[in-house]
Amino acid sequence: MTTGRLEAFSDGVLAIIITVMVLELKVPPEHHTHLHDLWHYAGVGLLTYVLSFVYIGIYWNNHHHMFQIVDYVDGSVLWANLHLLFWLSLYPFTTAWLDESNVARTPTVVYGVNLLGAAVAYYVLQLRMMRLPATGPRLRDVVGTDLKGKLSPVIYVAGILLAFVEPWLGLAPFVVVALIWLVPDRRVERYLAEHRDIAS
Amino acid sequence: MTTGRLEAFSDGVLAIIITVMVLELKVPPEHHTHLHDLWHYAGVGLLTYVLSFVYIGIYWNNHHHMFQIVDYVDGSVLWANLHLLFWLSLYPFTTAWLDESNVARTPTVVYGVNLLGAAVAYYVLQLRMMRLPATGPRLRDVVGTDLKGKLSPVIYVAGILLAFVEPWLGLAPFVVVALIWLVPDRRVERYLAEHRDIAS
Amino acid sequence: MTTGRLEAFSDGVLAIIITVMVLELKVPPEHHTHLHDLWHYAGVGLLTYVLSFVYIGIYWNNHHHMFQIVDYVDGSVLWANLHLLFWLSLYPFTTAWLDESNVARTPTVVYGVNLLGAAVAYYVLQLRMMRLPATGPRLRDVVGTDLKGKLSPVIYVAGILLAFVEPWLGLAPFVVVALIWLVPDRRVERYLAEHRDIAS
Amino acid sequence: MTTGRLEAFSDGVLAIIITVMVLELKVPPEHHTHLHDLWHYAGVGLLTYVLSFVYIGIYWNNHHHMFQIVDYVDGSVLWANLHLLFWLSLYPFTTAWLDESNVARTPTVVYGVNLLGAAVAYYVLQLRMMRLPATGPRLRDVVGTDLKGKLSPVIYVAGILLAFVEPWLGLAPFVVVALIWLVPDRRVERYLAEHRDIAS
Repeated sequence: MTTGRLEAFSDGVLAIIITVMVLELKVPPEHHTHLHDLWHYAGVGLLTYVLSFVYIGIYWNNHHHMFQIVDYVDGSVLWANLHLLFWLSLYPFTTAWLDESNVARTPTVVYGVNLLGAAVAYYVLQLRMMRLPATGPRLRDVVGTDLKGKLSPVIYVAGILLAFVEPWLGLAPFVVVALIWLVPDRRVERYLAEHRDIAS
Repeated sequence: MTTGRLEAFSDGVLAIIITVMVLELKVPPEHHTHLHDLWHYAGVGLLTYVLSFVYIGIYWNNHHHMFQIVDYVDGSVLWANLHLLFWLSLYPFTTAWLDESNVARTPTVVYGVNLLGAAVAYYVLQLRMMRLPATGPRLRDVVGTDLKGKLSPVIYVAGILLAFVEPWLGLAPFVVVALIWLVPDRRVERYLAEHRDIAS
Repeated sequence: MTTGRLEAFSDGVLAIIITVMVLELKVPPEHHTHLHDLWHYAGVGLLTYVLSFVYIGIYWNNHHHMFQIVDYVDGSVLWANLHLLFWLSLYPFTTAWLDESNVARTPTVVYGVNLLGAAVAYYVLQLRMMRLPATGPRLRDVVGTDLKGKLSPVIYVAGILLAFVEPWLGLAPFVVVALIWLVPDRRVERYLAEHRDIAS
Repeated sequence: MTTGRLEAFSDGVLAIIITVMVLELKVPPEHHTHLHDLWHYAGVGLLTYVLSFVYIGIYWNNHHHMFQIVDYVDGSVLWANLHLLFWLSLYPFTTAWLDESNVARTPTVVYGVNLLGAAVAYYVLQLRMMRLPATGPRLRDVVGTDLKGKLSPVIYVAGILLAFVEPWLGLAPFVVVALIWLVPDRRVERYLAEHRDIAS
């Protein structure tokens, strides 16, 4: 099967997840019109919104890159993709609890588990796609040793463990993973530049 | 008419349905930061969310497969498709009632009727598409005896009847239908592999 | 400009409008688990949901047909289209007020004005597209005398006036317009069948 | 990388932002069925909804035009685009606070800062795209001196400063920017008409 509709559906789901989180931000009520009211009602919410927005943005980016390389998929990839979307769809919920609790211990651990679940689901999706007969080897070339992909779950686990000690401390490793992925990753672009015939 | 826009619109609606259900999950309030609070406020919600997510995923999957075979549709298919989307769009509502009531009798029956309605709507859509002059016969070949499609409504009815006796028991057949469809179905892939000219 | 992205954006907006209305349905609270509770909390909501779902479905259908004929548009069409989407985006709001008030006078009139606004906006969009240099004449052929398009606003006005007398009576003409449009309209399909070269 | 999926994802996000704002409108409660109730509960909300709808419409329009000219992008454009979407995704939130406060000082300033942030993000995105090796020069030709793009942030700053004096007065410059952009901008269309080979 071609990947067009899988990409369109994933785009739709990711677009909704990224936007829907803004609905969870609490608007200060009627007579609370000062800047400290904004901070009081929506401060933590805005910080975690930025973090979760960046995560979804990274996933969209990587997803987009990966499917530039692969054109045909089988049914198992459809489900591996839905599995990834499931974990990502929980972000608005776990982010909302994190805010609501002002970054308490358990909500931070649950948030970390959600991040970890998505990372593992992405890894599984990538594995499945690297085993596709036609375009699998091509993707394996591009992904290479995939240091980032293997390191991220480890850092997430570190964050989860740190959150048991002190929740705010646990957020630090989560931010680190986001920063690692924000650094431009040229693997796919380099590959596409070398193999212009695939890009079209 | 070509099917491109029908698929895009359906993808949009399904992407929203699958994501919007997460908004119905109740976030534990401010000082409820323990794991048992998560279970208390969102436990049943998470279980039914998984179930409904899987259902929508299955429908998207089957819809996707069916429209790989058929390229041109008429106006009646547009409405049969909207009819299916209507039933699916009620999932967030009936799922929310199921949660809110902690799986009481009537909400479980109503949930089952919703599942049954969607299954029948899908069946009607498939029938209409098998009667299309150009690609109808091709689809009839692929669908074959369609044991799953005929069995599902029967199991749904069994679940609805069981729910009158004991609601939680009624959920079991609903889970069974989901599992039946999760088992990979190779009909379309096999057909596409044999007729590579259609796949493009 | 090609119409691909205009169609995709409109599909997105319509998909969201049609789905978001389900969020406005009131789920019966915790211990209200009987069928009459469903009716009490969501009965009117479900009826108006069906009505508004059918309207959005009709607009999507007609929009889809119209853009099968026209391939290139100018900037004025983009804005005429946004104008239509604006009126349609108010449906969830006016529908919600209609429910909340149990079909009181003013909310019914406001709902009618919303329907009328959308019908006029669609008419304006169609006019603009019939004036496009390349594909305009072709569309004018297909649309023909457009009896339905001219009659609908008149019936809407009748409904608005009737709603001043008795709100529930005012809903009748609104339902009539929906039924008129549900009757299959073969103008575009006939045209596409005769001019197969355009369909691709 | 081709721009297809970037456009689809942006369309999705913009479609949701534009539609989700209608959910923030407050429906008058049960027995408030008069026109002045509508004004009381949703009046300011409707005005700011129109304003924000027009803004999102303008961004979609300009985005659409810009990507008609450019076909290939690199990773930096993906992030510049996400950065723009981030600012736009805050519109429903800042609009809601503006309503809730009945256009008080700080919420108006915050709304202005949000508008300004989006304008700067769009400018940055445009800059990045004008530096693309293949299609950059073409875009530079079309954009030209970009008087509107340079004037808008200045007017936004004027609005923010005025809002400190009198909030309602601060809204005036914001409306002016919307009007400036609503005036049809023929740069892209003229270019496409002169270079028909690109349009396809």
